[in-house]
Amino acid sequence: FYGMVFQDSDVAKWLEAVAYSLETHPNPKLEKLADETIDLIGRAQLEDGYLNTYYIINGIDKRWTNLQECHELYCAGHMIEAGVAYYKATGKRKLLDIVCRFADHIETVFGPEPGKKKGYPGHQEIELALFKLYEVTGEEKYLNLAKFFIDERGKEPYYFDIEWEERGKTEHFHGMRDLGRQYAQAHLPVRQQTKAVGHAVRAVYMYTAMADIASETEDKELLKACKILWDNIVTKQMYITGGIGSMAHGEAFSYDYDLPNDTAYAETCAAIGLIFFAWRMLKIEPNRCYADVIEKALYNNVLAGMSLDGKRFFYVNPLEVVPEACEKNGTKMHVKPTRQKWFPCACCPPNLSRLIASLGQYIYTHQGDTLYIHQYIDNKSSMEFCGGNMCVTQKTDYPWDEKIDIELALQGEKEFTLALRIPEWCKNPQVSINGQIVEIGDNTKNGYAILNRIWKDGDKIQLLLPMEVLRMRSNPAVRENIGRVALQYGPIIYCLEEVDNGPDLHEVKLPLDVEFEAKFDEDLLGGINIIEVEGERVDGKWPDEFLYSSDIDITYNTSKLTFIPYYAWDNRGMGEM
Amino acid sequence: FYGMVFQDSDVAKWLEAVAYSLETHPNPKLEKLADETIDLIGRAQLEDGYLNTYYIINGIDKRWTNLQECHELYCAGHMIEAGVAYYKATGKRKLLDIVCRFADHIETVFGPEPGKKKGYPGHQEIELALFKLYEVTGEEKYLNLAKFFIDERGKEPYYFDIEWEERGKTEHFHGMRDLGRQYAQAHLPVRQQTKAVGHAVRAVYMYTAMADIASETEDKELLKACKILWDNIVTKQMYITGGIGSMAHGEAFSYDYDLPNDTAYAETCAAIGLIFFAWRMLKIEPNRCYADVIEKALYNNVLAGMSLDGKRFFYVNPLEVVPEACEKNGTKMHVKPTRQKWFPCACCPPNLSRLIASLGQYIYTHQGDTLYIHQYIDNKSSMEFCGGNMCVTQKTDYPWDEKIDIELALQGEKEFTLALRIPEWCKNPQVSINGQIVEIGDNTKNGYAILNRIWKDGDKIQLLLPMEVLRMRSNPAVRENIGRVALQYGPIIYCLEEVDNGPDLHEVKLPLDVEFEAKFDEDLLGGINIIEVEGERVDGKWPDEFLYSSDIDITYNTSKLTFIPYYAWDNRGMGEM
Repeated sequence: FYGMVFQDSDVAKWLEAVAYSLETHPNPKLEKLADETIDLIGRAQLEDGYLNTYYIINGIDKRWTNLQECHELYCAGHMIEAGVAYYKATGKRKLLDIVCRFADHIETVFGPEPGKKKGYPGHQEIELALFKLYEVTGEEKYLNLAKFFIDERGKEPYYFDIEWEERGKTEHFHGMRDLGRQYAQAHLPVRQQTKAVGHAVRAVYMYTAMADIASETEDKELLKACKILWDNIVTKQMYITGGIGSMAHGEAFSYDYDLPNDTAYAETCAAIGLIFFAWRMLKIEPNRCYADVIEKALYNNVLAGMSLDGKRFFYVNPLEVVPEACEKNGTKMHVKPTRQKWFPCACCPPNLSRLIASLGQYIYTHQGDTLYIHQYIDNKSSMEFCGGNMCVTQKTDYPWDEKIDIELALQGEKEFTLALRIPEWCKNPQVSINGQIVEIGDNTKNGYAILNRIWKDGDKIQLLLPMEVLRMRSNPAVRENIGRVALQYGPIIYCLEEVDNGPDLHEVKLPLDVEFEAKFDEDLLGGINIIEVEGERVDGKWPDEFLYSSDIDITYNTSKLTFIPYYAWDNRGMGEM
Repeated sequence: FYGMVFQDSDVAKWLEAVAYSLETHPNPKLEKLADETIDLIGRAQLEDGYLNTYYIINGIDKRWTNLQECHELYCAGHMIEAGVAYYKATGKRKLLDIVCRFADHIETVFGPEPGKKKGYPGHQEIELALFKLYEVTGEEKYLNLAKFFIDERGKEPYYFDIEWEERGKTEHFHGMRDLGRQYAQAHLPVRQQTKAVGHAVRAVYMYTAMADIASETEDKELLKACKILWDNIVTKQMYITGGIGSMAHGEAFSYDYDLPNDTAYAETCAAIGLIFFAWRMLKIEPNRCYADVIEKALYNNVLAGMSLDGKRFFYVNPLEVVPEACEKNGTKMHVKPTRQKWFPCACCPPNLSRLIASLGQYIYTHQGDTLYIHQYIDNKSSMEFCGGNMCVTQKTDYPWDEKIDIELALQGEKEFTLALRIPEWCKNPQVSINGQIVEIGDNTKNGYAILNRIWKDGDKIQLLLPMEVLRMRSNPAVRENIGRVALQYGPIIYCLEEVDNGPDLHEVKLPLDVEFEAKFDEDLLGGINIIEVEGERVDGKWPDEFLYSSDIDITYNTSKLTFIPYYAWDNRGMGEM
């Protein structure tokens, strides 16, 4: 064993990513490596089903004594997710059986029955994993255990105090207890929580499981809590990039409308977790508000987490970076001005791997006779729908191009509804079927264009989502954004980089009457739409010897500005953003 | 012994403040208490002259083993300052003798001679104190020891590594060593330092001693370093309030033009130390640039450090405070949204006491036959000047009023020059002598109106310093201030408080064509000039359900704004500033 107490989870997340990758890109060499890893994991598992190399190696007598800090249930959750994914991808049961035995062991330790511990994880994750295990095995005990963990959280007496007393008041991470009950969302029973607080990844992993359980058990109170928490995030605590968690202290939410750009945390994992949560909500209620956030988080905060070559990563994704500030002002020392090869806490890179390898899961849902298309991504998908097999093909260069061509392959003719998400940013969408323009008009529901007809094999739908450069303003309650706009084109949020625009980017101004030119540059950063505009910037006439003056004016010259997609920054050397 | 390792220094600073107070406000009860305290200190002193209660009580064998962290020389310095001040105020030698014995002991431990330690203080202070001891005793050994400490700093090998190895690599403050050599300005020999770096109080205490020594020893290289460091501070690293040290991490300078308003540190002690430094520079070279900074730091950052009733204190003095942010965003947890009764590290309150009690020292200097008046403060001062005794009386309500009446009392007639500082902010000063207006015209030097004539007893000078409300702009290189102004009236920097202007103060705008009305309000906050103006603020029409939008405009209504002096904020309950 080496590394963080939760190091096992990296292997688990890698295995899960391998599973998704094998589904779309078979690779015998990779599969063999995964199988060997699973064999190794199997050999590590104890007779009673327990599986966590930190405790197996460093003292099995200490297991389950520090749920608050030591991530045992978190690591278990990730291994369960891997087992489920690998089984679904390959049909191989070995890891699934391992994690079932582990989950069965956990169920002997935790639960409502007398003699079992009334604990719950310090870092939520196992709840959503147990739900997946329930779905794939049909075993209700896993659903019940997930529900137990969710229901137990926030109750009095506070479990993390109980276990702390019992283990002799030792701590694993210095100062973690000082972060308080909100840090792990254990300040209130989950159904009473109305604001997203604490560690952002823990929060959205928990909300994800809450939505899963609410849906499956038809728990209206739990679903209501999910909606309230969702609304709090997206209307008060989310960066325009889909980033969440505005402060480094506790990697956490701070408070409503507190979204500083330069000291932001906006962890890559948190935006990924927000996608998990949004997807559960979208499955429950097809509404573009959820799919729009998935798109926003994916193309902005999440993709920013990785360099274009896939070899370097951001953990923290602020919206304003000055490399000198990261180096010399301790307030920003959590911000890396350039992507890193790896991290001692390496949660984000494998989270990116498993999200990107599983993107296909986020494109379609169906309810009754309605097939929803939530995301526009070049793909070909087979699905069971309306009692038969159907294949949907999307051909598109979206988000670089407005045109999405969709083709249906089905047996014979079938009446059903195709629901196409119209992103909120798109003012004038157009739909045509087999070359004939269809008026959408009022025929939309919750942000989806509703196309009901008798469909036949080979039907072609073309969706146009015309893009214009938008000046996005923030609710004025967002203190840090007063007087500022962000540019958006399609679903992409834009930024200025020093490499294109020189240093001192805070000296740039965007007059109200400027005209933007958006154009595709196939040679730049793998091919992107850039935005060019004649802006203004400070003319540099302020004399060095004055720090403050009432006599000197700050004057501006016109200056060409080039904006690139935010996610693509820091791929051409370090500089201001 | 209790408290911080440097707790002795609080007693020393209190004694020093008592001394200054006794000079202007005799008080037998207070003097008796001070005498008793001095007796106690005398009884604590060891045979060999050593005096530090932390080491005497906790392990005398450990003395002088951790200069970097344990403040032994710092505490010694404060006790020396107290001894000097108490002797000058009362003529009593007891504490002076105590500190001379202590300084003599220190000189047996440290110095250039073989066998002596080549160390220097982790927190500078003793250097300026030894210089005062040299001045009052005439003993060159104290000057030489001060010079040794200054000269030794920044040399290789690094002394703090040597002592760390020697004491077995123990540390007193967890993590202090990680702050690096710049933290205590030990990264370079002092004559090679060109930028203010590290812990701001340490820095300015050191620069103060450097200026003292440079002046006394006619060390041009050292004086040049002082000027370079001064320029770096006042043209690149000083808040408009005279605050220095822009970050909490290390309570330190960060880098040029990095002056965030809301995460500022701007420690009260640091602004006081800047006054010490400025005063030494002003004595060397009468130039208003130094006296202006003294005035700026005094009336803004320093006074803000204390409530109007003198019972509560700020350690940190940011220029923008939102109480909810201090509570909920860890990035700002060093900022207290309201003054505190006391601090575990209580350096600032007694520093305020000794500065305010000694303000009389900062008003006049003379060089040759020129008497400089640097500060306009109601006072009556006797001084030896041009071979005789002279008494200068200032009658004024400055800075609330523009009029300063100065009267000279001298024996007979005498030709000399009176040099009156014209603050940089004052565009149209007027001088009259015995009722006759005197054209200043070009008759100024380094910002002082030069009045040369044959003066006689009873001569009256009236100086008018007309004030107007100034929109102060920052050098545009100050990222955080782009698009922002500060209001200044006289030497006072103004602020908006929630109690006068409601919450969400970031939603306020100051159009370019507004007219300001400044007026004295005798009933408000002890009697202050307030500034009123018809400004604008966001109209509140942005709908709650949108965090971002390209369709909604942010619009403004006119709104009356009331500004009060920055130093007077937080005297009417907690709120935004």
